[in-house]
Order: sequence, then structure tokens, then C-alpha cells
Amino acid sequence: MRIAVLGADGYLGWPTCMKLASEGHTVLAVDNLIKRQWERYCEVQPLWNIPYASQRVETWNKNESSRIYYVYIDVALDYEHLCNALQEFNIDTIIHYAEQPSAPFSHMNRRKCLETQTNNIVGTLNLIWAVREVDPSIHIIKLGTMGEYGTPDIDIEEGWLDVEHKGRSDRMLYPKKPGSWYHASKVHDSHNLEFACRAWGLRVTDLNQGIVYGAHTSQTWLRPEYNTSFHYDAIFGTVINRFLCQAAVGYPLTVYGDGSQTRGYLNIIDTLECVTLAAETPAEVGEFRVFNQSTEQFSVLQLADRIADMTKTKRLHIDNPRIEQLGHYYKAANSALPALGLKPTLLTDKRLEQMYKVIRPHIGGINPDLFKPKIRW
Amino acid sequence: MRIAVLGADGYLGWPTCMKLASEGHTVLAVDNLIKRQWERYCEVQPLWNIPYASQRVETWNKNESSRIYYVYIDVALDYEHLCNALQEFNIDTIIHYAEQPSAPFSHMNRRKCLETQTNNIVGTLNLIWAVREVDPSIHIIKLGTMGEYGTPDIDIEEGWLDVEHKGRSDRMLYPKKPGSWYHASKVHDSHNLEFACRAWGLRVTDLNQGIVYGAHTSQTWLRPEYNTSFHYDAIFGTVINRFLCQAAVGYPLTVYGDGSQTRGYLNIIDTLECVTLAAETPAEVGEFRVFNQSTEQFSVLQLADRIADMTKTKRLHIDNPRIEQLGHYYKAANSALPALGLKPTLLTDKRLEQMYKVIRPHIGGINPDLFKPKIRW
Repeated sequence: MRIAVLGADGYLGWPTCMKLASEGHTVLAVDNLIKRQWERYCEVQPLWNIPYASQRVETWNKNESSRIYYVYIDVALDYEHLCNALQEFNIDTIIHYAEQPSAPFSHMNRRKCLETQTNNIVGTLNLIWAVREVDPSIHIIKLGTMGEYGTPDIDIEEGWLDVEHKGRSDRMLYPKKPGSWYHASKVHDSHNLEFACRAWGLRVTDLNQGIVYGAHTSQTWLRPEYNTSFHYDAIFGTVINRFLCQAAVGYPLTVYGDGSQTRGYLNIIDTLECVTLAAETPAEVGEFRVFNQSTEQFSVLQLADRIADMTKTKRLHIDNPRIEQLGHYYKAANSALPALGLKPTLLTDKRLEQMYKVIRPHIGGINPDLFKPKIRW
Repeated sequence: MRIAVLGADGYLGWPTCMKLASEGHTVLAVDNLIKRQWERYCEVQPLWNIPYASQRVETWNKNESSRIYYVYIDVALDYEHLCNALQEFNIDTIIHYAEQPSAPFSHMNRRKCLETQTNNIVGTLNLIWAVREVDPSIHIIKLGTMGEYGTPDIDIEEGWLDVEHKGRSDRMLYPKKPGSWYHASKVHDSHNLEFACRAWGLRVTDLNQGIVYGAHTSQTWLRPEYNTSFHYDAIFGTVINRFLCQAAVGYPLTVYGDGSQTRGYLNIIDTLECVTLAAETPAEVGEFRVFNQSTEQFSVLQLADRIADMTKTKRLHIDNPRIEQLGHYYKAANSALPALGLKPTLLTDKRLEQMYKVIRPHIGGINPDLFKPKIRW
């Protein structure tokens, strides 16, 4: 395949590029490094230093038998560049990670709320128009989030819901209940993409992803220059990654509220596997296909307890800075990706210990002040 | 009440200001006249000339016993001005019409798609943040559209749907299936507003309005300077208004496709009545209340036939420039506003004839070329 990865400089984008390149696909890595600017704005840094996108691509191309192509494009601004790149590389598949990915960031202030929604919505709209203009048969794989669904009192299905109502029935988009301005931006993207499939015959796979954890993939292990951006802070760090970093410096595991928030989770290795599976079996023309991309569900408390036990660290319950339901029902379907061949990489104690071992040599890079959730909804 | 009307220069905004002022409310009219800029971009004009907002407000204040206050604010850009105005006038109710209102406009090209979605989404987000900052108890009345629902195969309910699924149940947002980038922008607004109610305790009434027709209200009759912006063109003109103008100049009534598209409709008089009723009985704190604001449903063909008969004009079926379902099921609930006291102003033959009589002296202002739908989806 000839694949463009948008947001190729990110936590998931960069390992995706390496995996697909090493499997023989032509990979066009696209980014504008704006995530690094947002990190500076928030005064946070990844656990370890990350070379600039062009540098690590150069290192990859020098040392590996496969090649990654890199272009600097702001998907939300440089529409013409985006079209040219898709055309020049004769792209058939796009994996779209190029979005502001943090719920707390979107709640810092009004400007960051607007920036999150406009960046994400406009980037995705530009992508829709570009695909329509360049080649409507390009398969768009869009990263959404399980957080689009919220915590409904019924089972969460994969994007669509068969509704019976007053003696009639229809298959409808599953109703969404996002928990932040960021999550809402993904709901808006999903609606725009579904409309593009229906009106213009585009082919889209929307991957509603759970919370990703993990530091390494088959390719990041190869060289330190291949490391991916790993955050432990309260803004960009996901909870398992953050708990392990807290434990590594003897900081109590900060649980928001009673920790009964239950969510879907997956290992970063499975993210890569899922986007590959989606790419290999594209959506049909005009199909808006939705997969729930998570392999296990845990409450925050379950995770805190497991990591506290393993690392002999305390748990600390703090006021929940977010507005979210506690003690809620949660059961989310996730059988579509296993049906395509996904073999889940589950969160075993051994994997937790491996991650912990990877993190510990880097504790010099941890600023414990960044664990504190200072942004309230 | 102390009411701000955003989008006060528009077809619905201006008559709303006059009605509320004449009923004794304090009315702050807010607009940035951007709709007039969009009209110039599309090279269309209202059927009759409309004074500038400040001029007709001045005429009103000179001749009537009530007073309208006018401020020029771009809700999508001038956040600080918006906050200051809400504070200075001690506003308790906001009627938010300040959005790009045309589906074809949003499909002209990529830039107009982006402009529609960013203008509408950012304006509504600014309003949400402003209300939270100035006074979260302000009641927001937001104009949405019945077009958010699309044409599902089940009955359309008023914003919320009781879902039974696998032995469990929940009350969920009614799933949306918008038919254009414009309609999608309203879906995004609704999701953002619902989140603001849930997370921040705002009080919102979302009025999913049908297609409005009509030229006059009790106040526009008083003086020609009080006329409201009435469009007959294929971009901003709604279908009944357009058919009557076509008939007035002997142009065939252009029906898109077979004309089986069925939608909810209401008279402009009822729009004003509905927003008044919503304002008088505000949503509760934290409530996202949705009303379907339409009084009757018709297929395009039914309307064309009635107007063709009345005016002895031909019908002309043309290729549908839109992508929409034909021959679809359509049954939309609309009992909430009548329950608050709405007495519908139905589309009688007499009312159609009255409208026709109002339009005929103005046929010199009609450019028949503007009837043609040149924008395709």
C-alpha cells in the first residue's frame, strides 16, 4: 500500500510509520510539529528526548532497508500542499492522527477550546475535500476515541445502533455523549466523515480508540533514536503511563475521585496492529465503518491497585478535576477488529513490569509537579 | 426580560427584535452584517431593499414607544465585546440566530464549507464561554434545524430518544444525519451545547426549526423600513418564498428531483411566537431542552402543486443538485411548543394568496437567473 500518516510525529504516528515501512509499504509521514508547540505552551516534555521528525526519519532511512518520506504540512492550513502530496505519492490509504489529542488541554481556557475544535474539525474537513479532489477511492482511517460515547446506561456498540421505535426500525449512528471539548471535536469529525461517505461516496474507517498505554513497539526497540513521545504529565499523559512514572519516583498514584471511571484500554502495539488491519481490509465505497479499538476495560481504581501493589506505592484520591459520571455502567463491544485478525496484547503483570523497567532509568527526566491536574473542567 | 438577539439583522432576527421590544422587553440587537457580505459574494439580493441595521433601529426608536439597542459584534471574533454587552445590559435571555444559514452556500466550495462550520461552531462556543463567564443562569435559545435529523426510517422525536437495548434503557440524544455541511454545523453546535449543560450547568433550549416561509409579521407591516430580508434565490431563499416569486414573474416552479422530499414548515410569525414561548418558560439549570419548531409537514411536490394551481404556473422538475433521499418516511414530533401555548399559523390558501399579493408589486426586483440552483453537493 501507499500510505500517508498524518500526525506522524506523535506518540502513535511515528511508530505507525516505522511499522508500515518495515512491512514494505510506501509511507509518507506528514506533520507540522504543532504538538511540540502545545507541549511548550503547557511547559511539559516527554519522558525522554525525541529527535525532530526529519532527523529520526533520516536515521531510519540510513539504517533500515525500508524508507519513510517526510513532509511538513499543516493539514488544517496547507490544503494545496496536502493535495499535492497525496497526488505525488499516489496515496491509497490515509491514517489520520493529526489532531489535538488532550481533553485537559481543550479545557485550559477558551482559546485552547477553540484551537482544539477548529484544528481538529478543519483538518478533517480539509482531508475530506482533498480526498474528494485527488482520488475519492482513497481509504481514510481516522482515529476517534471511545470517549465520544461517554458512559451510557446501555451497551456501547461499534458506531452504529439498530433502533426500534414505535413499531419501526432504523440503523442509526450511535448517540454520542462526549466528556470534554476535545472529545466533542471527535464527535464532530465523525459526523462530518459520515456525511462525506453518504454524500460523496468516500470510504472511511473511524477507529474509536480506548486509552493507549505502552512505551515500545517492535521498531522503537531497535534504536534509542526511534523512541516515541511518551508523556507522564496530567495533560498529555495517559493514565497507565502516568501511574508507572509516579511509582518510579515514589509519588503516590493520583486517582481522580473514587476511581470508578471505567474505560477501554489498549497497548500501543495493538494500535499499530489495528490501523494495519483496517488498512488491509478497507471500507467499501460510501461506507462509514466504525470499529471500537480497545482490548480490555478497567476502572482507574483497578489500575491504581495493580500498579500500587506491584511497585509498593500508595494511592492518593484527589478531587476529580473533570466532570464525569462515577459508578456508571460500562460495556463496550469490541469484536470487529479481532474478527479481522487482531490478537490482543493484554495488560499482564509481566507487561506492566517490563514497562516499569523501561521507565525507571529515565526518572531524572520526571518533574513530579507535572503529575498534578491543574486544569479543571 | 432583558434579551440579546444575536443575528439581529437577519430574516428572523430583525422581526424578533421588533416583536420582543413591542411587548415591553429590553432588546439588545447584535449583528456584524456578515450575512450581507455573503450575499454580495453570491451576487444575490433580497426582494426589497433593507436599511442597514443601525438605520432601521433608529427608525424604530424614533417612531415606536419601545426601544431597541443595537451593537455591532462579530460573535465568532469579538469575545470581549460580547461579554461586555451581556454584562452591561444585564441580559437574562439570548436568542442565537447568528449563524451562516444556507446549505447551498456551505457547498459552494471548500472555503465556504470551512467558513460555515468555523463561523457557526466558534460563534456558539464563544457564546457558551461568555455565558459561563458573565452569568451561567442566562438562558440560551439556540436556533437549530429539523435538517439535523435527516430523514430516518423511524419517527423523529424532540431532540432526545428513549432507547431500549439488550434489556437496558437510556435517554439519549436523538441520532443525527445532517444533509449538508451547514446542517452538520448545527449538529456540532447541538453537541457542544448539550455538553455545556451537562458539564457547566448552562440552560439551553435548542429549537430545531423547520423551513420558514412568510414575508411579514405584526411589526413589519407597520412601515416599509421595518421590512425583513426576504430571499427568493436558490442559495438563501426557502422553498415557499421562492416558488411564489417564481410564479410572480411567470417562471416555472423548479422542483428538485421528483419533489417527494418531505420536511417540516412554519410561518415566520410562528418562529417569533416559538422563541418568545421558549424565553418565557426557560430551560432548567443544566437542562439541554430541545423543541421541534415546525407546525406542518409537506412534500416539495405538494407545495409546488398548490402554488402552481393558485397562480396558474407550470412545474418544472430539474436534476436534484442536492444529495438527499427521495420517497422517504417522515414523521416528526412537534407537540412541545403547542403545549407551551403555540397556536399554529397554518399555510391556508388565504395566507398563500396574501403572500403572493405582497410579492407581486416587487417583481421588478427579481432576477430570474437567481432561481437556478448552480451549487451541487
